[in-house]
Amino acid sequence: METLPDETLDLFEKPAKATIASFLPSGHPQVTPVWADYDGTHLLVATNKGTRKHENVQHDPRVTVTIIDPDDYYRYVEVRGEVEKMPEEGALEFTDQQAQRYWGVDEYPYDRELPRVLLHISPERVVSKSLGSPERNHS
Amino acid sequence: METLPDETLDLFEKPAKATIASFLPSGHPQVTPVWADYDGTHLLVATNKGTRKHENVQHDPRVTVTIIDPDDYYRYVEVRGEVEKMPEEGALEFTDQQAQRYWGVDEYPYDRELPRVLLHISPERVVSKSLGSPERNHS
Repeated sequence: METLPDETLDLFEKPAKATIASFLPSGHPQVTPVWADYDGTHLLVATNKGTRKHENVQHDPRVTVTIIDPDDYYRYVEVRGEVEKMPEEGALEFTDQQAQRYWGVDEYPYDRELPRVLLHISPERVVSKSLGSPERNHS
Repeated sequence: METLPDETLDLFEKPAKATIASFLPSGHPQVTPVWADYDGTHLLVATNKGTRKHENVQHDPRVTVTIIDPDDYYRYVEVRGEVEKMPEEGALEFTDQQAQRYWGVDEYPYDRELPRVLLHISPERVVSKSLGSPERNHS
């Protein structure tokens, strides 16, 4: 298990959308947008039970979560890891917190009646890069 | 081969960064930011020869390119496909065009001496979604 470097942590505070890559039954990666957070040990990503990505990780727990800095498109963090557990507990609360953070609403407004799971992802390999766009380099 | 729906094409004009997922030798997806364009048939992505992702697609041509709308983080296009060819021809010109479009500079300023390849990706499956954030739904 790896720890995320401090210099990547602001990416979880910014209004950046993450993507999660998981394996379709065909073996091809599915890559879709998600909200991601980091609790110091695991990456956290919520999804509805029974979605394609939920099915995917039940068959193959390997995932890759990538966040690009919206303020600097040459800066990103890529976390390769595995889904360690995915309880229903905490999933809706997590989603509400993210909706509060990014949308300024009290509650996530969709599918509240559907069972939801919270993926706990153990980082196995973390890649973070910052090349900087030319404007930044010259400022 | 699939054609991208018209309603996704603006994502290639906006200042959005795409990601490309390819297979590491371990089989885990590597997901990194790239510039992507669409010529009506292929997705186009340039990379330096010998990079990890160039090695990856030589061993397994399956890739997934995903673009999230920077103006609406619940709207995205995901293109699953295969790298059909990757000539050196046109790769630097493509990169310069993207640098002009997104950075407003005449030439891409990095690694101009390195050999570069232009991945031509045939779309096999296109997923595009737009749920809309609550602000948009209520506006």
